[in-house]
This record gives sequence, C-alpha cells and structure tokens, in this order.
Amino acid sequence: MPSIHLHLMEGYSPDDKTRLMQAVTNAVRFVVPAQPDAITVFLNEVPPDNYARGGTQRRPAPALKDPAKIVMDFLQAMQDRDLEAAQSLLAPSFSMTFPGTGDMKTLAELIAWAKPRYRFVTKTYEGVEAFQQGDHAVVYTRGTLSGEWPDGAAFSGIRFIDRFEVADNLITRQDVWNDIAEIKSST
Amino acid sequence: MPSIHLHLMEGYSPDDKTRLMQAVTNAVRFVVPAQPDAITVFLNEVPPDNYARGGTQRRPAPALKDPAKIVMDFLQAMQDRDLEAAQSLLAPSFSMTFPGTGDMKTLAELIAWAKPRYRFVTKTYEGVEAFQQGDHAVVYTRGTLSGEWPDGAAFSGIRFIDRFEVADNLITRQDVWNDIAEIKSST
Amino acid sequence: MPSIHLHLMEGYSPDDKTRLMQAVTNAVRFVVPAQPDAITVFLNEVPPDNYARGGTQRRPAPALKDPAKIVMDFLQAMQDRDLEAAQSLLAPSFSMTFPGTGDMKTLAELIAWAKPRYRFVTKTYEGVEAFQQGDHAVVYTRGTLSGEWPDGAAFSGIRFIDRFEVADNLITRQDVWNDIAEIKSST
Amino acid sequence: MPSIHLHLMEGYSPDDKTRLMQAVTNAVRFVVPAQPDAITVFLNEVPPDNYARGGTQRRPAPALKDPAKIVMDFLQAMQDRDLEAAQSLLAPSFSMTFPGTGDMKTLAELIAWAKPRYRFVTKTYEGVEAFQQGDHAVVYTRGTLSGEWPDGAAFSGIRFIDRFEVADNLITRQDVWNDIAEIKSST
Amino acid sequence: MPSIHLHLMEGYSPDDKTRLMQAVTNAVRFVVPAQPDAITVFLNEVPPDNYARGGTQRRPAPALKDPAKIVMDFLQAMQDRDLEAAQSLLAPSFSMTFPGTGDMKTLAELIAWAKPRYRFVTKTYEGVEAFQQGDHAVVYTRGTLSGEWPDGAAFSGIRFIDRFEVADNLITRQDVWNDIAEIKSST
Amino acid sequence: MPSIHLHLMEGYSPDDKTRLMQAVTNAVRFVVPAQPDAITVFLNEVPPDNYARGGTQRRPAPALKDPAKIVMDFLQAMQDRDLEAAQSLLAPSFSMTFPGTGDMKTLAELIAWAKPRYRFVTKTYEGVEAFQQGDHAVVYTRGTLSGEWPDGAAFSGIRFIDRFEVADNLITRQDVWNDIAEIKSST
Repeated sequence: MPSIHLHLMEGYSPDDKTRLMQAVTNAVRFVVPAQPDAITVFLNEVPPDNYARGGTQRRPAPALKDPAKIVMDFLQAMQDRDLEAAQSLLAPSFSMTFPGTGDMKTLAELIAWAKPRYRFVTKTYEGVEAFQQGDHAVVYTRGTLSGEWPDGAAFSGIRFIDRFEVADNLITRQDVWNDIAEIKSST
Repeated sequence: MPSIHLHLMEGYSPDDKTRLMQAVTNAVRFVVPAQPDAITVFLNEVPPDNYARGGTQRRPAPALKDPAKIVMDFLQAMQDRDLEAAQSLLAPSFSMTFPGTGDMKTLAELIAWAKPRYRFVTKTYEGVEAFQQGDHAVVYTRGTLSGEWPDGAAFSGIRFIDRFEVADNLITRQDVWNDIAEIKSST
Repeated sequence: MPSIHLHLMEGYSPDDKTRLMQAVTNAVRFVVPAQPDAITVFLNEVPPDNYARGGTQRRPAPALKDPAKIVMDFLQAMQDRDLEAAQSLLAPSFSMTFPGTGDMKTLAELIAWAKPRYRFVTKTYEGVEAFQQGDHAVVYTRGTLSGEWPDGAAFSGIRFIDRFEVADNLITRQDVWNDIAEIKSST
Repeated sequence: MPSIHLHLMEGYSPDDKTRLMQAVTNAVRFVVPAQPDAITVFLNEVPPDNYARGGTQRRPAPALKDPAKIVMDFLQAMQDRDLEAAQSLLAPSFSMTFPGTGDMKTLAELIAWAKPRYRFVTKTYEGVEAFQQGDHAVVYTRGTLSGEWPDGAAFSGIRFIDRFEVADNLITRQDVWNDIAEIKSST
Repeated sequence: MPSIHLHLMEGYSPDDKTRLMQAVTNAVRFVVPAQPDAITVFLNEVPPDNYARGGTQRRPAPALKDPAKIVMDFLQAMQDRDLEAAQSLLAPSFSMTFPGTGDMKTLAELIAWAKPRYRFVTKTYEGVEAFQQGDHAVVYTRGTLSGEWPDGAAFSGIRFIDRFEVADNLITRQDVWNDIAEIKSST
Repeated sequence: MPSIHLHLMEGYSPDDKTRLMQAVTNAVRFVVPAQPDAITVFLNEVPPDNYARGGTQRRPAPALKDPAKIVMDFLQAMQDRDLEAAQSLLAPSFSMTFPGTGDMKTLAELIAWAKPRYRFVTKTYEGVEAFQQGDHAVVYTRGTLSGEWPDGAAFSGIRFIDRFEVADNLITRQDVWNDIAEIKSST
C-alpha cells in the first residue's frame, strides 16, 4: 500500500522516468512486503520556475544514462574488437581484474592476457542487474562463455560473471570471474 | 533536489526505515545526478485507522528482513558447520551452483563436492551488495578465500563472488564463482 | 489508481475515520472506474498546533454523528412509542409527509393520521443509504412493512421507502412512500 | 479546514472533474462539520508517463458517465415512448418493481402493467440525487405525477419516488413508489 | 531540511513566483536554522478546473504587485517632481509624517514643508526591505541624502529611513526619519 | 486558496510553530491576494527516524529565538542600565550608529555619546516588526521617546525608529534615527 510521491524538476525522458519509477518500486519492495499492485509511484515534475532551493531557482541536470546500457555497449565493443568505442566508455581511473591477474589499467593489457587463453570468446547473457550504491552504479552481467581455445577447439557453456562500477556515465572498474580454469583443469 | 514523500503504514523499526530510505535514495540517484545532500526522503507513517484501500482498512505486514543479513547468517553457519542453522535459512526450492557443479539441491551435496577440494575455507569480505529485483532480493558477496588444501597446505587471497536470491526471508538460490581452479592450475 | 491524501485536524474517532474514508472512496468511484483495490485514502491528522488558517490556529469541531444512526434511532423510538426519545432527534423546523397527508409538523399529527390505518407496523429493512448533499445529509431506508390492520388482520411484505434530511445532527424532514393503499385497494 | 489532494491520471473532462470534486466535498462534509469554504480539493492530474503501479505504467480508463444523466435520459425516453432508446440504457440483468408488481424484466411488462392504470403520465421533478454505493451508483428521483386516468380524467400532484441502480454506465435496477393507489382509493 | 509544497492556482508570472518562493524561504529561515541549501520550495500550480473550495471552482485573482517597486516608483516620481505619477500610487486614505510635522494628507503639504528646508534632495539607497504584515505590506528604504540647502550650499551623506505601508497596490502611509536637523544643528 | 504543506523535523515548540505559520502566511499574502481565511498552513512534523537527506538521517537543530524578543530584551536591559545583560545579547561583530555618530562598537561609546544629550530616555512603542532577510533577521521598533534633557527639563513624544539585525540569536547591528535634533532646534 505504499504511495510514493517523487517531486523533481521536469526534463526527464519517458525512459528515464520508467527506470526511476522501477528503481523506486524495487527500493520499496526491498523492505515492505506489499503486493506489487499496491505500490504506486507518482512523479511530480516541477517546472524550473516553480522550484527554489535556498530561495534560488535552479536548472535540472540531465539524467544519468542507464549504466546497464553503458556496460552492454562496452562489452559489445570489446567483442567487436572496436577498442576505440570501448575505450570511450572508460573513466581515466579505470581498472580491471580477471582470473589470475592483478589490477590492469589498459585494454592492451587485457588483450595480452587473453591471447594465450582463447582465440575468441562470445558471451550469452542470463542476467543483467544494475543498481545504485552511493556514488556509483553497479552492474552485474552473468551467463556463459563460448569460443575457441588457442588450439582451435571449441568450448561453450562456461559460467561467467562480470561486475562493473559506473560513475558519471563512465565505467570505473570491471571484475571478472569465470570457470575457464575449472573447465580446463578437468579436461 | 528531488524530494520524496513515502506514505506507508506505521509499524516499521528504525532499522527498517533506514534501509528503506537508503534504498529509495539509491534508487533516485540511479537516474537523477543530484548531489546526495539535495535528495530528501520523508517517511509518512500512517496509523492503520487512517488508511483505507478500496474503502477497507488494512493491517500492515511486518517488514522483510535485511536479505544481506540473512545471507551473512547463512554463510557464517556454513563456516561454523552448523548445518541446521544454515538449512533453516533456505527455501524448499533452494538450489545452488558452484564451479564445475550442476544444480545442487542439498547442503550434503555441497559438502561432498567440497571434500576433495579443500579441508576448510574462510571468507574475507570486500563487499556485500543487496538490492531488490522484482519479486526477490539479490545479494552479492565478494572477497577472498583462505584455507587449506586437502594436503594441508595453506592458501589465501583467492578471489570469490557469491550471488544469492532471497524471497520471503529465505534463500532460494546461490551461485558461486572463484579462482580456485585458476590458482591450482597455475601452481 | 487514485491516491487521496486528506489533511484534517486530529480528534476523530476510528468510526468517524472509517465513515470518512468510505465516503471519500465512494465519491471517487462515482466518477473514476478504478478497481476498489486501486483506490487508497490516507488521512493525515494534524495536531491543532500544526495548523493555521489565515495565520490563526484553530480548534477542531466534533465530527457529525452518523446520520443513518440518527434516523435508525428515531425509527426505533417511534416503533417503541418512545415519543420523547423520537422528539429529541428532530429539529425545531421538522416537517414530514406521509401518503395522503400534507406537511405535518408534530408526531401527534402523525399518530392521529396512522390510527385509522393500522394498529401497529413493524419495519423490515432491505437497505439504508446515507450521503451528504450540500448542507444536509440524506438518509433513505427501504424494505417491507408488517403489522395489523385496524380490524386485527395481519399484513406483511408491503414495500416502503422513507427519505430523511439531517442537519446539525437533527432530522429536519421525513417523506414516506409505501404500497399500503395499493395493497388495500387490491384486497 | 480539510484539504484534500487527489492524485489521478490525467484525461478527465471539466465536467468529470466538477462532479468528482463535488462528490469528494460532500463526502468530507458527511463527517466533518467544516464550513464549505474551508474545504479545499486539489486534483493533481498525472500524465501516464509519470505514474506506475507495481513498477508498471498504466493507461487511464475513461470516466464513468453521470448516472443522474443516464437515469434522466431513460425517464425521458420512456415518457417519449422511445423504447429503443430506453432499452439501450438498461443492463442485461435489469429488473424493476412498481407498486403491486413483482420483479419485471422487460419494458413490455411495464407497459402492460401501466395500461389499466393510466393513459399517460408526466413527471415533475423536485429532486434528483445520485451517489456511489460500493460497486454501483444509486440515483433517486422524486416529485409529482400528472396525467390522465384510463377514463380520460386528469390527475396531478401525485407524489412519486424512483430508485435506480447504475453500474458500468447501464441501469441495473429500478424501484418505484407513488401515491396513485392512495389517491385513487380516496376518490 | 524543510520541504515546502505550496499549492495555488496557476496564473502567476515568473517574477511573482520568484518573489513568493523567496518570501516563503525567508519565512522558514525566520524560525528554522537550516542551511539555505536545505530549504526547498515547490510551487504546485493548479489549473482552475482542478481546484474547488466548498465544492465550487474558482478563478485566481492577479498577483499583488511588488510593494518595493511601488514605493521606488513613488520615490522616483517625487524626485522627478512628477506629482501626477506619484499621486496615482497613493491610496485615498494616504497620510505621511516627516520630522517635525504632524500627519499630512497631500503632496502639496509636503512640498510646502520641504521648501524652507532644502532646494532639492537626492536619495542614495543602502537598503530596501519589504515584507507582509497582516493586511498590508511594509517597505523600508534607507540610505543617505544629498542635495542643496536653501542657501545653495551642498550637503550629502545625511542618513535617512522611510517606512511605507502598501495595501491593494497603493501606498497608504509614509513615515520619514533623517538626520537633517542633527547635521544642521551641528554646523 | 493557497494550501501550504511544510514538512520539517519534529521538535519545535508551540510558539515556534505559531511564529513559523504566521511568517509563512505573511509570505504568501505578500504575493497572493487571497483572503486570510483561504490560506491554510499545515506543519508536518517528521520524527528524525523518518527523514533522510542524502540517505543519512539527521537531528534537528533547535529553533531560532524570536528576534523581536531578543531586541526587546536588549532595549529593556539598556533602559534598566543592566549593561551585562545587554552585552550578552550582542554578537562580537556588533556595531551601531546613532544620529550624528559614526560606527560605534561598544556600549560604553554609546553611553558617552548619550550623556550630553539627555539624562535618561524611555521608549513608548508603536510598532515592532521582525522578518528574515537572507542570513539575518531584521527587527524594527518605532514609537516615541520621553525623558529629561541634561538640564532636567522633561520631553516626550519625540519620534524614533530603531533597526536591528539579528543572526544566530545575537544582535549584530543597530541603527537609530529620531527627531531629537529636530525638536531641540525648534525650541
């Protein structure tokens, strides 16, 4: 039965509003065991002329991009070997960790690391989850990997999970876990 | 600058309220790039006498437990080998996947699987994240494993991530990824 | 999906609130074809210290009594021949019309009118409806009459409807229609 | 002093809004003895993009028609002997009761019943009242009848009251009381 | 942290809204020691169709003019010796007091009083303050006077303060204090 | 017809609330020409547990004291020659200007200045006005002075006005104008 009234400056797109209302609905359901149909969210968009903070009128900032989309664009660019596009989605402070690596700072390091491991890899997604955690969004993608070993043999169905942090519309961190070593060691 | 007014029936604990307001604040920040200090949440608790749905007054349901706490209690019970306590936190439909396993339904299966892999394992947590996703909460815990191999040799610093689903205060699913095979294969 | 927030001074009883929320829910359903479960009413009771009109704090007036109850008490008192109790529920301006009468001002007139018509009459209620109409409430009661004709013969199942106006907790008007003449003329 | 804020999806006509705000004002006055000028109603119309229930956006349903208008249209059609128009306003489950009849299901039954009673009848209205009662609206019309007896003699000033139930914009029930038998028996 | 939601009929200009939100912000800061940035004001403009008082829809009255502007226009007109323009800003009941005068009702009296005191005077403003006080606004202007004594000698830097009352967009009262006598007596 | 809902943390005294609601009512009337009775203010006091800013719960700060009372206490202390009490109400940065003085920083300077001017002076107040202006409150007191000249002759009815600035419950500035020189020079 919770009723949520969210007052914000006008200027958000229908997609922004949908994402916002779904995130707020999930936030309420995190604590309140209400049936979904009993949770109503109202967005009250206020024209800038009708809002003041400290007696001063303000302009709204544009909405944040969907971090799940940023991450999926990055993963697609990597799969397409479009390093320029991938790089454009990374923050200057970006770092990443893959199984067996320490912190890597550049996509070049990643490619060098991958070379002896597989010829190529394709991801099949079973789940993409995104949520805010203080100053950054977190995006999880999980599913299975398929591709070819360095010797050309095919593999598939290897579980993986990636964790990303996104701030100010750029990826700041990637952490990867998967069963590649488990599968290799068992063959 | 968003101002959120959340009307709900009274009866939530201070901890419930804190979790609720933080979840809602995160939900707003997921889309609106406002400074944290500009996001205000007001809980308006309504006595049951003062609320009607369809003209009928209702009683509030108790808040959902913190799913992160449920998961941490489960993990502690497993580490303590208190299988009864661990089992009490699992839904009848519970299933889990670990590296190299298919779906397992019972803790006994898990223990049989772990036996040839390590004598024991202790988790050091670097992050616990919980959020709602429709009908269930998702909890991620990640960090490093330390323990002893079957031959008694010690290991430590092995990365892991666990994903849990929690519904109606019970764990319905666990998925585990880690670098154990990666580390073993490289030694 | 309408959500109604009703701000009023505190001091109403649980029964008053129930009546108020049901009346408001009905008012909304009069125009909006929402499912009942989608209509939520929140009463926000404000302590007198927290409310000002024209900069001046006010004290709440006591709730109006349920006009349906006032009418049923009056009808019961009449059936019990407790004229004093009945009279105490009538406004000084009270008037009434029964089949074949003009305006009557006193219960004595009514009793004189009824005398040649029946020895006594008892009401079985099929419906009581009450609603506000500007400055007064209207109450309708309808059902069937049973009793004895002046010659002692019994009758029953004769349809009736009464209309009352209630203002300031007193009945100001009663209008009565029934099938007594219809039944008599057909026997 | 009550202040009512009614949040609903946009798409209602000025007439719908007037009816809605008057119904809500009456609902409040049913319980709260505030001066009319102290009761304020605000409709907050929400664009469909700005509303979610259970995290899902919805489309508004069209407003219900004014049930008093439906009833008056029906009564006019009956007086004009436009049975097709009258029939179009009746629900399949329609039934009616007139003095001395049981339940009648068709307008043809009604006409047959009326034939021996009067040549024609015209209604002068003193009051029309409409309100919601759970799943249906109730409409009362009352006033006086004039017309001609079967022998051609004129009559007038005979009190009547009609009660209608209206659901989903169709009349489901009519109940009629009047003083025709009373007047006839006294002549 | 106060959040103020002000519901009013639409039809106010951006300037009106700015004045209104600043006045409300100041009103809150008069009592609540919140940081300015923590005080948010939302204007919810309601179309006339969406507002009813006592069940009756209303039309909004035009905003009051800025009383500080009315006063400054009056003072400018006086300095320009445009008595017609100045007079048009005065209410019929206008009265004024200057140092050493009793109540004066007309601008002609004022000019006669000023003649032996200075040839002309120009105001330099250090502060203009306007606020509402029940049925009228109060405007204070203060600063320094410069001009010429009757003998043609120049003066400057003489402190003054004027107090005005403004009601219904017209000045009803002016009271003036200054150091002219103090300065003269000390020379 | 404006309806103002002011949400703030609980913990304010009845007097604080009265001052707050009157200040807000005046603020609205500064721009909106509504009848006083049509302006309603609702204070919604939120327990600290039910409010978060940036996801963090806060404690309310105590209300600011009534600056008019601070000023009147200061003026009374000065009249009573209780310099310690008067001093305790002044901010370290306090400064004041009286007719013919420049900026004075200490009460001792003021007393020295007053000595040749009058033996003592008593104030009769005709008006006290207080309002907020950004970071400080402004208080105006005006009326007439009576007392004795240095030669013991009595005077009375001399107009004065004082302007004070108050911040953080301390007086930061006093400016005084009066007709003493005007009266003296005309005697």
